[in-house]
Order: sequence, then structure tokens, then C-alpha cells
Amino acid sequence: MFPTRLACAQERIAAHLERRMAHLPEGPVTEAMRYAVQGGKRLRGFLVLESAALHGIGEEIALDAAAAVECLHAYSLVHDDLPSMDNDDLRRGLPTVHVKWDEATAVLAGDALQTFAFELLTLPQSLPAGRRLALVAELARASGAEGMVYGQALDIAAETASTPLTLAEITRLQAGKTGALIRFSAMSGALMAGADPAPLAAYADAIGLAFQIADDLLDVEGDADKAGKKLRKDAEAGKATFVSLLGIAGARARAEALVAEAGAALALYGSAAATLIDTARFTISRDS
Amino acid sequence: MFPTRLACAQERIAAHLERRMAHLPEGPVTEAMRYAVQGGKRLRGFLVLESAALHGIGEEIALDAAAAVECLHAYSLVHDDLPSMDNDDLRRGLPTVHVKWDEATAVLAGDALQTFAFELLTLPQSLPAGRRLALVAELARASGAEGMVYGQALDIAAETASTPLTLAEITRLQAGKTGALIRFSAMSGALMAGADPAPLAAYADAIGLAFQIADDLLDVEGDADKAGKKLRKDAEAGKATFVSLLGIAGARARAEALVAEAGAALALYGSAAATLIDTARFTISRDS
Repeated sequence: MFPTRLACAQERIAAHLERRMAHLPEGPVTEAMRYAVQGGKRLRGFLVLESAALHGIGEEIALDAAAAVECLHAYSLVHDDLPSMDNDDLRRGLPTVHVKWDEATAVLAGDALQTFAFELLTLPQSLPAGRRLALVAELARASGAEGMVYGQALDIAAETASTPLTLAEITRLQAGKTGALIRFSAMSGALMAGADPAPLAAYADAIGLAFQIADDLLDVEGDADKAGKKLRKDAEAGKATFVSLLGIAGARARAEALVAEAGAALALYGSAAATLIDTARFTISRDS
Repeated sequence: MFPTRLACAQERIAAHLERRMAHLPEGPVTEAMRYAVQGGKRLRGFLVLESAALHGIGEEIALDAAAAVECLHAYSLVHDDLPSMDNDDLRRGLPTVHVKWDEATAVLAGDALQTFAFELLTLPQSLPAGRRLALVAELARASGAEGMVYGQALDIAAETASTPLTLAEITRLQAGKTGALIRFSAMSGALMAGADPAPLAAYADAIGLAFQIADDLLDVEGDADKAGKKLRKDAEAGKATFVSLLGIAGARARAEALVAEAGAALALYGSAAATLIDTARFTISRDS
């Protein structure tokens, strides 16, 4: 049930992105934008669709927000992969944008994907302007100097720091780097419906952290072919991770506890939140 | 009168940016963001304030939009200066962000400045949500893959093209690279007031083009110390410009005609548009 639902959402988001990008002027930057939003788990977009469904928001409205968060996420990956940042050649099993094109195109395609994310949030005409604006404000808070970019800056600083990060520092880093966008995604349905986003924010904070712990476990235990990216990078770089700090068993136990916490946060939704609870479990059982 | 008004607006926008950035987490990315929005002519922010005043919009509201467009412009400069793009060491007489910090910080500071621009547009509570959303939508259109980034991509492609650009191609490039953001700035007051932005859009298209022609003239005739950046770059690079295509006298005549056109577009505003008409003249008489 859950894998089908996720696969179906991936398809619909991909088709929607294609439609929305159809009018962009042809050229390497637009090609690179389309390339960068291909593939991936689309977990953030899926969370948007599920959060919207939970609040009775029609999918035609939610798809713009789902596409927006996927564009925002894709931009962050394109820029993070740059030689001056993480210097990655491979992403989702394919050459990264600066390898396939060049660095200038990667910078510009990332820039334009960020812009496009905000543009998409302004589109769904049937959603009152105030709610579309709330989505814009929340996405901006999640992705900028207090959110995703903040986490990425901490991550880069950690690489040259003389001492490895503590658990508190890694948690703060994660809350920015991957947590903030997951939080936006989970809250988005409540924002679209004008409902209280607090329960979904608590759910998202738990699964965001679980997701990162699972990523660290994957880096240690995973299969590079299935993951579609280089693994064992953290240990090679002598980087502190949840696994290096908690051990494999400790990290796994923490992830399990977070999944239970995520489920508890959604108790008030009852069985309507079943897919979101399955999603929480999925974040720690994936192989890529 | 005009220089005082511009200087005063520069001050107020700088103070507003400082206030709005005060809560950002300390670190190199935030420092680089503050550094990148310092100095400059703030012509775009000034256009926002004047366009707002022309429509009776209070300055406290307009300052967020003015600060937003300056952040957007600053982000574009930080990224354009990167080694993989224009590779500039000097901007406004100071080391560029990647020289003063490093490339990763420049990429992230630029990214966060773009995000911050959109966040600023969501802030002025006294402006109806629909109008704030219209500003977000217009800024996104102006700066993404159909606007500013499109122009920058054409500019980069032109550097490796086998034949120099034609006048039509340079005009299209300029309309994206510098024109789109000037257009947003000039239109913003009408958008905040719910008025027809068409006359201001026509005004902006004329001064945007005049501004670029003046830039090309400055590159040929200017004083590098006053300009605060390297000059004679276009001729050295064998790049087609309005000056190489029209000649110095031809380019100057075209710029003069555009300033007259800009004034005519604002005829319906009468003497209330005097400062905007002075601004049009300023765009072609500056030395930096």
C-alpha cells in the first residue's frame, strides 16, 4: 500500500513539474533544471500531498506546493554537489549537474530552481492569497540563513573544525540542513487549510532527525549501487555522525524511538494519518 | 534635489536591511550576506520607494520591498562574481565575497540572500496578503529562468559563441540580466496599491535599456577608480556591446532617446513623477 502510494505520488509530481516547466525558455539552464528535479525519492513532495489530503485540500492545489518543495530540495543538492562545496560527481546514480554541464550552469540552474519554487507557491488560484503567502513565508524561513542554508554552513564549518561535533551540534546542523524542509513539507497541508500546524511540525521534527540517523546508518551499512551515491564518506572524512556518536545499535534505537514519537504526535488525526505514520517508518527502512 | 533624495533613500534602505538582518544566526554566511548588501547605488531600492510614494504607499511598507530587491540584486552579484562565472575580484571597490571568504560561503550567502528577498516580501502586515503575494509572484518571474538568470545564461553563452551577438540578442540579454529587476522595482508601487503597473513597466523597460547602454559606455570611457571595478573588460574580451554595435555617438543618442521615452510613459502621473524622470536621466549620467 505505502510503496504504491509513494510511487504514484512520485509520478504525479514528476508530471506536474514537467507541465509547469514547459514554458521556460530552452537552453542549458532549463535543461539542467529539468535534469536536477528528475528521480529521487520525492519524500518531501509526498509529505506535502499527504499533509494536504489529511486536511481535505484537493490535489490540484497541493501539487504546486509539492513541486515547489522538490525544486527547493533539488536546488540545494545541485549547489551542495559543487566542487567548492561537497564536490560530488554522482547523485541519484547519475552525473551531477556541474559534471554533466559545467559549474556556471550548475550555479544558475540551482538559483533558478530556488526562484521557481517560490513562483510555484504563488500559482494555485483556488487557494486564498493569505494561505499562499503563508506557504511562501514558511518556505523562506525553512530554506534560508536560519534554516537549510544555516545547516549547510554548519556542515561545511565542521569539515575544517579541529574537534568533531557534539551530539547537540549535529542535531542542530541536521535540524537546518534536512529538517527544516521536511518540516515545511509536513506542515504545508495545515497551512493550506488554515489549521494548526503544530502537531505536524512535531511529527516532522521527529522524522527529520530519524531520516538523518538513517542516512548515517546507510553511509556505514548501505550498498552504494542501491544508494546511487558514494558511501563510507563520513568515516573516511573522520566526520562525527549520529553513528559515530551513538554506535550502530544506539543510532538504530534512537531512530526507532523517533518514529514512535512521530506517530504519537499525530494521535489526534486518528487513522486518517496512517500513511504519514507509514512514511515515518519508511524514513528509517530505506536503502537509498 | 535628486542626489539628496537618492542618498537619503540609500541610508534608509541600509538601516532597514540592518534591522531586518539583526536576528540572523551569526557566522560567516550571515557576515557575507551583510557585506554583500553594503554600498552600491541602490537604484532598484530607490525605484521601489519612489514608485510606492507615487501611489501613496507608506514608506514603512515600501522599505521591505526595497530591501528585498536589493537582496535579490546583491545575490546575483555575489554569484556572478564567482570564479566559474565572471571571475571578478573587485566589486564596489572592495574584494568580492569569494575572495574575502571562499567560494562555498559565496554560494551559500548568495542562496540565502535570494531566500531572504522573498521572506522580506511576506512581512509588511499592513499590506493585504493578495498584494504581498503579487510582489512575490512578480519578483519570482523577474529573477528566475525567464528573467535575470535567463539573461545571465545568455551572457555566459555569448562568451564562448563563435560570432558576436546581434543588437536584438544583446537587447534580449539585457532585458533579462538587468532589465527584469528594474522593471519589478518600478512596478512595485503600483502592485502594492493595486493599480495598473503598465505605465511603470514601459518606463522601466526604457530606463533598463538606457542603464545598460550607459554601462557599456562607462566600460569604454569611464574611470576605474570612480567606477570601483575593472573597466575595458568588454573590448578586451572581444564582446559585442551596445557601443561596439552602435558606436559611442550612436549609443549615446539611443540612451538619450530612451530617457525621453521613459518620461513620456509617465505622462499620466504629471509632476508627481518628477523624481522618477530625474532617475531616468541619472541612469545615463552616472560615473559608477
